[in-house]
Parts: sequence; structure tokens; C-alpha cells
Amino acid sequence: MSDASIDLYIQPSADPHLSEYVADRFKARQFLSGFKGSAGTLVVTAKKAALFTDGRYFIQAERELKGSSITLMKMDMAGYPTLEEWILEELNNEGSIGYDGRLIAASEESKLHRCLKSKNYSYITSQDLAESAWDSRPDYPLTKVFVHPLAYTGQTASDKISTLRHTLNKQNATAYIMSSLNDIAWLFNIRANDVAHTPVAYAYAIITATSAQLFIKKQQLDANVTEILYRNQVDILPYDNFYSYLSQLKDEAILLDPDKVNALMVSSTSTNNMHIHCSDPVFHMKARLSETEENNLRQAQIKDGAAMVKLLHWFDNNVASGELTEADVELKAAHFRSQQSLFIETSFKSIPAHGSNAAMMHYSTPENNSPKIPAKSLFLLDSGGQYMDGTTDITRTFTAGPLTEEEIRDFTLVLIAHIRLNRVHFLQGVTGTNLDIIARQIMWENHIDYKCGTGHSVGYLLGVHEGPARIKKEHTDVVLAPGMVLTNEPGIYKEGKHGIRTENTVIVKEAASNETGTYLNFDVISYCPIDTRCIDKSLMRNEEIEWLNTYHKEVFEKLSPLLDTDEVGWLQNATKAI
Amino acid sequence: MSDASIDLYIQPSADPHLSEYVADRFKARQFLSGFKGSAGTLVVTAKKAALFTDGRYFIQAERELKGSSITLMKMDMAGYPTLEEWILEELNNEGSIGYDGRLIAASEESKLHRCLKSKNYSYITSQDLAESAWDSRPDYPLTKVFVHPLAYTGQTASDKISTLRHTLNKQNATAYIMSSLNDIAWLFNIRANDVAHTPVAYAYAIITATSAQLFIKKQQLDANVTEILYRNQVDILPYDNFYSYLSQLKDEAILLDPDKVNALMVSSTSTNNMHIHCSDPVFHMKARLSETEENNLRQAQIKDGAAMVKLLHWFDNNVASGELTEADVELKAAHFRSQQSLFIETSFKSIPAHGSNAAMMHYSTPENNSPKIPAKSLFLLDSGGQYMDGTTDITRTFTAGPLTEEEIRDFTLVLIAHIRLNRVHFLQGVTGTNLDIIARQIMWENHIDYKCGTGHSVGYLLGVHEGPARIKKEHTDVVLAPGMVLTNEPGIYKEGKHGIRTENTVIVKEAASNETGTYLNFDVISYCPIDTRCIDKSLMRNEEIEWLNTYHKEVFEKLSPLLDTDEVGWLQNATKAI
Repeated sequence: MSDASIDLYIQPSADPHLSEYVADRFKARQFLSGFKGSAGTLVVTAKKAALFTDGRYFIQAERELKGSSITLMKMDMAGYPTLEEWILEELNNEGSIGYDGRLIAASEESKLHRCLKSKNYSYITSQDLAESAWDSRPDYPLTKVFVHPLAYTGQTASDKISTLRHTLNKQNATAYIMSSLNDIAWLFNIRANDVAHTPVAYAYAIITATSAQLFIKKQQLDANVTEILYRNQVDILPYDNFYSYLSQLKDEAILLDPDKVNALMVSSTSTNNMHIHCSDPVFHMKARLSETEENNLRQAQIKDGAAMVKLLHWFDNNVASGELTEADVELKAAHFRSQQSLFIETSFKSIPAHGSNAAMMHYSTPENNSPKIPAKSLFLLDSGGQYMDGTTDITRTFTAGPLTEEEIRDFTLVLIAHIRLNRVHFLQGVTGTNLDIIARQIMWENHIDYKCGTGHSVGYLLGVHEGPARIKKEHTDVVLAPGMVLTNEPGIYKEGKHGIRTENTVIVKEAASNETGTYLNFDVISYCPIDTRCIDKSLMRNEEIEWLNTYHKEVFEKLSPLLDTDEVGWLQNATKAI
Repeated sequence: MSDASIDLYIQPSADPHLSEYVADRFKARQFLSGFKGSAGTLVVTAKKAALFTDGRYFIQAERELKGSSITLMKMDMAGYPTLEEWILEELNNEGSIGYDGRLIAASEESKLHRCLKSKNYSYITSQDLAESAWDSRPDYPLTKVFVHPLAYTGQTASDKISTLRHTLNKQNATAYIMSSLNDIAWLFNIRANDVAHTPVAYAYAIITATSAQLFIKKQQLDANVTEILYRNQVDILPYDNFYSYLSQLKDEAILLDPDKVNALMVSSTSTNNMHIHCSDPVFHMKARLSETEENNLRQAQIKDGAAMVKLLHWFDNNVASGELTEADVELKAAHFRSQQSLFIETSFKSIPAHGSNAAMMHYSTPENNSPKIPAKSLFLLDSGGQYMDGTTDITRTFTAGPLTEEEIRDFTLVLIAHIRLNRVHFLQGVTGTNLDIIARQIMWENHIDYKCGTGHSVGYLLGVHEGPARIKKEHTDVVLAPGMVLTNEPGIYKEGKHGIRTENTVIVKEAASNETGTYLNFDVISYCPIDTRCIDKSLMRNEEIEWLNTYHKEVFEKLSPLLDTDEVGWLQNATKAI
């Protein structure tokens, strides 16, 4: 920092594509801080260092930062400064602020500059300081790209690009620049393995009225993929040429989403072009599944449910020994998924957590010396799969042995929250902000809160946590629409005690339409029993009990054909009406 | 329009202070269109005219525009253009757009210009065309200003101004310009009668670090008021000098809220000063009642409830005759309120509506030939009072005779929605957008929607519909906080059938605080029985029935001391547990 004349350096978690999960090469924040959570920003001055992260990671970050000189800043909690307030405090009236302009969204950069504009700060945005500090930094991954076939996508890349061009045209845009790996993978119907759990390739793209340019490392493309891309009128250019190509653009009206492109992409094109800010059109196009995608996803969910039942059956038969470890459960879940047809990989690093470990919302168990599971309390498993026919994400919390009254009560509250959200009908036009309280209400009634959203969109053979839609108490302007896939995952997390979450995936459907409007609701598409041994039925309303019994009936019908006799017996018992 | 070279003229409903209710002088939109609702914008070209209004007024506007050549544009309904889309359609690529820059908020003007910027339109913003079209236009009202005494406000004007100066200082502002009549009345502890139902005086104000300038017509001030204002270090300047004074401001950092000041105020100060845009600080200061204000308001609500019970008792004894008119009920309600201590005037034009008339959310009954009330169906009365010790707003729907099953069912649904919202606990930090669905959920479940918000703030001896907080499904960024006063008023409105609304006022209170956050809830402060003859108890949950019985017990305890023997007997019966 002192060589580069930087007084304060900001190290975000992102890669240049602002991915949630990134290739090892881009885990610089983790390398520098030791904190392994997927979200967090490290800020360093000559004397101090602070890590800003959100409620999902408070417990984990506290543990992983212990012994370092880095102070944990709990975002959105009273008594903690925002990143900008911290900077103002540390830098006072002047100083130079450094960051890599590729690792920060254009909108975040604007906000940062706006919040700090009263001071006389300078910005050095071309420095990747992690590079010099990190001797054994991994190289770019160069995994093989494969085509996502028409049977699963329902639409060719060329058809998708043509729909996109209509949108650009309507917005009077002549060019559209893309860096989101998920959006690019979806638009071009390509996938790869550059990032663990998210089957994407590192790439950029530029779409104009007449061209579709894909910037990607050519080593990743075989002749077949190249041929199919050419057939879809896609030009292939070298990944490393992207920024120099960008800076040569001239007289274009460039459509871009400041939340989805990095600051360097904006500054590289700001002199000779016009910018049209707009919520990313591909982000929204891909959020509503086509009929083909939906039919495929429903199949993937059934296979995934069968794998989950095999896992739960195995767990029930083996937990009493006290010898199982959390890592055993993670491996076994991956094993049962891998036996399902069209399986590619797990859709995120599983969370297999016993007892109080589950209070860490994004816990991951150590690979070595993973803790043994005592035959008591609750066990939480959050896991999912990437299948050629879709992405899954499911959490079940289940009994590992005798439970406390508090565990049973909290499990039931979470289940009630989950069921209420699943049963809600809502007017077309509202967002996930309107719906959040339907799940959260019973928590707030009991003066409990979970420090995270209630649901997120799920990609289709793409990111497991994707936008645009979210169900959360904070503002979102993404209107829920038929075909959107979301999770429903309220929880209760009590530090030192237990963590409980019940998560299904739902798809938005039209429920009714009359002169007062169109009403939507959720169709649940995850199939896996919810542990009835943990329920205090007396807390539930009749309609909630009915929902559970109906759901369990469907689970049995859908999954039993995929199971062996023992497993069917287990499932029959697990799905008995309460 | 053609003399002024204007191709399209926009006539909003507002006065230069952007008041919801305006003096007759400013009812130009009503004069020009014939539509009497409080919200709506008329747009006129050489060939066409359109009136844009929201869901509260669709039925009323349809009726009042019948026979005119004005087309009704239903805002936010599918198939209807926005105001800007209509302009683009009518004007095509060029033309001149006229409006009076004092009658449109600065933020609305920005939005208008932004939406139309792709075209080559010119703007003529200094023309009040209504002036020439309106021969017998009323003059400014010049009612007497009176001081709102310390016993009711708990704070002197000079104390309030001093708190405000801290805020200005924090925002690095040197001046703050105000046009909101409600904000000015609150800040200076003055009231008047310039606008029916809202006890304010037409005034502007400018606050700096050293001065507090009130622009008001001097005829309205007597020696006593002048003396008290001087004692609070307030300078009094002529109302008519405001814009010329503004345009002489120089080198000021002016804090203003673009939603609360008109476009002319912004353009008058834009050349030689800096603007700091900020949500209006006084708007937020006055939203949270002080202890003095709250204690006073609770008294006012009890008096208001007693007046309501007298009215309901009288109605029950007289409705069977079939000779009562809606106007009789309105007058009688005003009469009973006027007998209460510290009463000033009604807080809005009452809505006394029988049967299908009540389906018009903002119905008002004709003064002459008001319809007689048949002894059947439901009667809705939305009414309130301005008292020296606070403002009330309450709606009851009650039986005028035999009811249909549908009326009983809908009444019960509205009651359930009302009770659910009243019972909710919520984390500090959320807004009315988060809460709206708590009331609306049972409507949406039944595929019904009410086309309005669920609640609004109520001023303190000020506007009955005030911001900043709202409970509505649309986005609001106003965080609910202890001391805020809101209405809770879900409804069902079925054109040609009936309209049902149950409205109480609530105050936000702290319910609990622990390591997960601070939880708030609502304390109901309106006291008046809810007609138990209209309820289908089988639709209600036990906790909802319990709420109603507990509420009715409190109503009886609070109100019976203010009633005569007959009325007490009636109330005892009306508040019997169900």
C-alpha cells in the first residue's frame, strides 16, 4: 500500500464478474483475512483492518477472525459503522483510497464516491494489491465448456439473443455489455466448471443489433461448442482482450446495469459513448422459466428428493452409533445425488451442521476432524444439486436423538412460518418485500428474528442463489411473476443452542384472475419429508396441519417409485399424517 | 391555451403548498373538470381532455365526468396509459407543455421532464390558465391565526426551531425552505381556518441558522399571535413577497425536499445557491408525538368515541323509520362532536354512505336531496374531528336493517384484516410496506383487493391524511417508529353492492427489546364499538374473537362515563362479548 501511495485499501469478495461464488484465483479477501464466508469486505489502513459482513456470517466471522488484528463490523446492526462511516472516521479529511475497479459494481463505486464526496479523497482504482501479497495465487481455471442442449433449454442462443435485441431496441440502446457469468451462460446456452458449484465459464459479452460477441479463453472451447456458437451467430473473441475492446467502443448507446457490471467496465466506456442505465434485461429474462425449463426442473426436483430420502433413511439407521461425522453426512448426500441421472455437481458447499453449529447460517464442516454427531438434538442439512435439467436447493432439519422442548417449539415455529408463506395468495404486482412478513410474523410475535432473507431465486443449471427476485424485509423492486423459482426458507438460529431451517423451492403460478386483479401463489416443487418427530402439533392451525399432510402425501407418491423397499417403508412412516 | 401558445396544459389538484385539501381558490381542477375528488390531474389539448385519478375515485369520477368530453384514466390499472404516456401519444414529437410551476412538486416536475426527454417539448411553467377561465374565482381565505398553546404542544416554536437547526447543521445546510402548511403550522405552533377541515394558514417559511422567517398575510395575525411569534424569534414577512425574496437568496446551501416544495421554489433558487435534497426534516419531527401530545390525543380520542356512540345510538333508534337521510347522519355526527370539549371542526368531509354508495371510497352525500336510508343493508360512516388536543379519524360500518350473507361475510373479512394488523408485532426498522399484507392477506386469499392503502399517518390538530408513514403495498422508505399515529382501515368495496371499512387509529409502541432487536406493536387509541350484529364468528380465529372482546371491554370502560343512561345501556349491549 505504501509503495502504491494508498492510505486505505478496499478488498471486496467479488471477481470481475461480481459472482457470488468465485474461482480460487479471486478469493483474495479470504486469503488476506482468513474469513471464509462468501460475502464480506476487508478494509485496511496502515494501522487498522476491518471486515464488514452481514448477519448470516456474524458467528462464523467472529470465530475465523479470532487472533487476527481484524475487527469484525456487523452490517446493519446498531453500534456498528457502515463501510463509508468507517472510512470517514479513519481517513479524516484527506487521503487516497485504493481498490481494484474490476471487483466492485459500478453502482457501489458511485455510492462510495457519493458518501465520501464531502472529503478530499483521491481514488486509485487500477491496483490489485492482492496480486503482490499472494505468492501462490491460483491461475484462471480453464475448464471445458459444454453446450446446454435444446431439450433442456427450450430455446436456442440465437432465439434468446433475438428477444434480447427487441429489448435493446425499445430502450434505444445500440450495445449491451455483460459480465455476469450466469447471464452469459444462460444467454449462450453454455456451461463449464470454472467456479465450484456454479457451472459457468469466465467470460464477457457484448451484444449489438448485428453482433453477439463472446469474450472467452479459447482453450476452453472444443470444436463442437465452437461450431454450435457459430451456428448461433456468436463471434468468439479472447477473454483477455475485453477491456481493450471496450475502450475502443465509440458512439454507442450502451445499455448496462450498474449493479451487474463492474466499475472498470463503466469507466472504460464512459468517454466516447452514452450509457443507458437499466435493470439487466437478461437477468429478468432468465428469471421466468419457460415451459420446457419448468418441466425439466420438476423432474430434477423429484430425483433430488429421492436422493434426500435415501440420505435421511441412511442417517436414521446410523446416527445412534454416535460415530457419524458431519462430513460423513455431506459426503453421503453428495453420493446419493451423484447416483441420480443427469447429475453434474453439488449446487453449493453443503451445510451439514449438528446442534449449535447450525446456528451459524452458513456453517461448513471441516474436511479433517469434522465433529462427530451425538445422538441428541437436531441436525441441519442444507444441500442441493446441479443437474442437466435444473438446480436444486433444499434444507431439512431433523432429529439426531432426544430433543428439548425449546428445540421442538422452535422447529414448529419455523415450520409454521414455512407453511404460511407457501399458502399465501398475492396480487400480481407485489414484490418479495410484501410477502416476507407472512413467514416472519410468527417469529416477531415471539420476539425472535432471523438475520437473513426468507427466500431467493434459484438459477436453472446456474447459480443457486440468484436474483432478481428475493423474499426479504428490505426493499426490492423486482415484481414476482409466474415462472419465477424461489426458495422458502425461514429459520431460527440461537447461538450456542441450535439452528433450524426448513427450505423448499417453489414456483410462482397464477391462482386466479378477476375484475380486481390477477392473483398468484406458490407451487412447491421440492419433495422431501419434514421431520414430524420434531413438531408440537398444538401450536399449529388446522389449515397448516392439513397443508403438511397433503404435502407429505404428494412426497410419498412422487418419490416412492425411485426408492428401494426399505426406503419406501421408511418414507411411508415419515410421511404419515399428523 | 392558444393565446399562450400552449399545446397541452396540465391542471393538478394542488395549491402552491401541495396540500391535499385546498382552499376553494385552488379548486381549479374541480372547476374545470367537474370531478370533485381530492386527487386527480386534468390534461387538456386542443382536441382532447383526460382526467387521471386513482382507485379511490374510479366510481365517483366515472359518475361526475359523465356527459363531459373528459376521458377517465384509471391510474395503475392495466390498459390505461400513465400521464406521461398519454402526453407522448397526444403530442408526438414536439409541442409546448404548460402548467403552473407552483402547483406541481419539484420531484414530479423532474419526473415529467425525465419521462419526456426523448422528445423535443418546450415547457411554459409560469401560466395559471385557470385564472382567466374562472370568472368568479374565490380570493385567498384570510382567517384568524391562533396559537396552539404549550399545554397541547409540549414544546415552544423556538424549541422546535432549535432542534430543526441541529438537523440543518448536520446536513451542512444554511437554509431550509418550507411550503407545507401542516409543517409550518406545527413548527410555529400556529393554526387557522384557511382550509376547510385542516386548521392551517396559507404561509411559507425560511429557516436559517440565525433567522426564522414566516411569510404570511398580516391581516391574519392579531397582536397576541404576533407577540408570541416575536417572543419565539420569528420574523413576519408578507406572504406575497415570498418568491421575490427566494429569488434574491444567494450562496446558500438550501435544504429542501423535492416531494414537499413546488417546482417554482426550486427554479427560483437554483441559480445562485446549492440545493441539498433531503426528506423533509419537519415532516419527520412532527410524526412522532411527544408525551404531551400523546396524552392529549388520548383524551381527544375518548371524547370522539363518546360522540360516535351517541351517533350510533341515535341511528339505531331512528333508522327503522326509513326517513333518515345520509346528510342527517353527517350533520348529527358533527353535532355530537361539536358538543365535546375543545372541538374545533370536523377533520374532513364526512362520508355517510348507505349500501352501494359506500362502494365509492371517497363518496360524499349531496347536501340537497341526500338519499334516504332504507332499513336494510349496511351504513358506512367515515368521520373525524379537529380538537385542540388532537385530530381523530374513525370509520364504522353498521347495520341499517337485515343483511345479506355476502354482507356479513365481507364485514367479517374486513374485521379480521383489521384485527390482524392491530395485533402484529414487528421489528424496528421496517416500514408500512412490510405490514400491509398482514391486513390484506385475507382479502387476497379470497381473491378480493381494496384499491387503496391500509393506513396513513394522522396529524396532531393538523391534516387527517398526513405522511410520512403509510401502510400500503407500494414502497415507502419511512421506517415506523414509536410515537407515530396511523390509521388501520382495510375495506371491501363492491360496486353496486356495498362498501365496508373498519378504521381505528393506533399509535406505535415498543413491545419488547432483546438481543435480536427491538419489537414494536400498535396500541389502539380509537374507542367505538364494532357492530357485532354483522359478524360471522365462525370465520374468526379464537385470538381474533378475544381481541374484539377485550377491545369492547375497554371501549365500555373508557366511554360510559361520558354518556347518558340510555346511551350507556346501548353501549353495554353493543360491547357484549361474542
